[in-house]
Amino acid sequence: MTETQPRTVSVCFLPAELNPEDLHGTTAVIVDILRASTTITTALSNGAAAVKPCLSKDEARAFRTESGDCLLGGERGGLRIDGFDLSNSPADYAPDVVGGRTIGFTTTNGTRALLQSQQANVVLIGAFVNLIAVAERVEAETGDVAIVCAGTNDAVTGEDVLFAGALARKLESAGMHLTDSALIAATHWSSTICETPDLFEALCQTQGGRNLVGLGFDSDISLCADVDSLNVVPQLDPDGLIRQT
Amino acid sequence: MTETQPRTVSVCFLPAELNPEDLHGTTAVIVDILRASTTITTALSNGAAAVKPCLSKDEARAFRTESGDCLLGGERGGLRIDGFDLSNSPADYAPDVVGGRTIGFTTTNGTRALLQSQQANVVLIGAFVNLIAVAERVEAETGDVAIVCAGTNDAVTGEDVLFAGALARKLESAGMHLTDSALIAATHWSSTICETPDLFEALCQTQGGRNLVGLGFDSDISLCADVDSLNVVPQLDPDGLIRQT
Repeated sequence: MTETQPRTVSVCFLPAELNPEDLHGTTAVIVDILRASTTITTALSNGAAAVKPCLSKDEARAFRTESGDCLLGGERGGLRIDGFDLSNSPADYAPDVVGGRTIGFTTTNGTRALLQSQQANVVLIGAFVNLIAVAERVEAETGDVAIVCAGTNDAVTGEDVLFAGALARKLESAGMHLTDSALIAATHWSSTICETPDLFEALCQTQGGRNLVGLGFDSDISLCADVDSLNVVPQLDPDGLIRQT
Repeated sequence: MTETQPRTVSVCFLPAELNPEDLHGTTAVIVDILRASTTITTALSNGAAAVKPCLSKDEARAFRTESGDCLLGGERGGLRIDGFDLSNSPADYAPDVVGGRTIGFTTTNGTRALLQSQQANVVLIGAFVNLIAVAERVEAETGDVAIVCAGTNDAVTGEDVLFAGALARKLESAGMHLTDSALIAATHWSSTICETPDLFEALCQTQGGRNLVGLGFDSDISLCADVDSLNVVPQLDPDGLIRQT
């Protein structure tokens, strides 16, 4: 009888740690809690047809020209981009706005992390709003798991690592093995939520949270802290579009 | 009256996260607990004149030819390199062996992390054996602090992050501000040592620790867990040599 090795879970604290070759055969979960991964999940849950992650504002504008009919969304410095229809706030992506539409989308950190992870076998997007849905989907896939934190301006940011730890704990309960990186994230999640059981409060204390509070976007943090409120798992398809699965 | 910003402490979980430009003006502490940073500290404490970090075995051999009279030390796959005098075990670097000698030194992870950090204003080497000495030295320097974990084979490894967290806690007590990355390491340190108060046991459970136990080098882990046993702080000088300070 062959002994089956348990699937392993690793966390990349920043996309810079990624070795694209190491992603072959893995299931990757991309995390930018405040706010890109929450916003993309919200948009698809509210009926958007697809989201096209773009590295630059110009790439997003070119996508609009090419596709003929799409919305543009995203941020620079946390704020809506001039000439874009939508900001990076999940609140902008209501059903009557995004229903049936494709959205060209560019943010400072999240879209880059997504596009750097395309070597993975499956690329999913995770946020607190779809934590259980993502965990179940990861369990249904095969191969090792890489949870990739987007960070903020090339620095590790606590809110992404908190989510990575929460997801790692769920996957550990499902029998997967946590590498040291995943164990560090899981410990951070368990300790933080033990000390600050209100996730909204915990997110406000992270670097990304402080940035949003500084911009007056506290209500967005509230939306991002609404655990398991959505039952969709966005997936980046090989054609470069993110769709609901 | 001008308000002085507190110095900030960041942790790089892997050298790949490093942006060399961000190191300008900082004090960097390079960490490869099992075993390079412990071994270098031991060698200098036992009277070695200097340690020359070399990226490759060939570079170390060329250094020996050039310098005329030095010892060669280090490892590949955790084991002594063919033709080298010393392995990467701190036990090899006894006073009667290294006293007055310069050592060409190459290891898989630690020497690379060191050489990637040379843009920092001051480059120090930290280990549990010189924890307090390093903390005091960092406090006496100026600028922000970057604690750089070497990792193991391009993966984050727990023992380096445990030390980064222990050092971050000491610097926090001295009034410095922990960024999210330093806070994550500090939480990992506090939680781990609360659950496993014996540092030797805690180190054995990390990836680097398991590798060494697998090679039968448990006694080295013991040496690396001997907190504050040495009162020297190795520093990488601009001429590329590490000396006692």
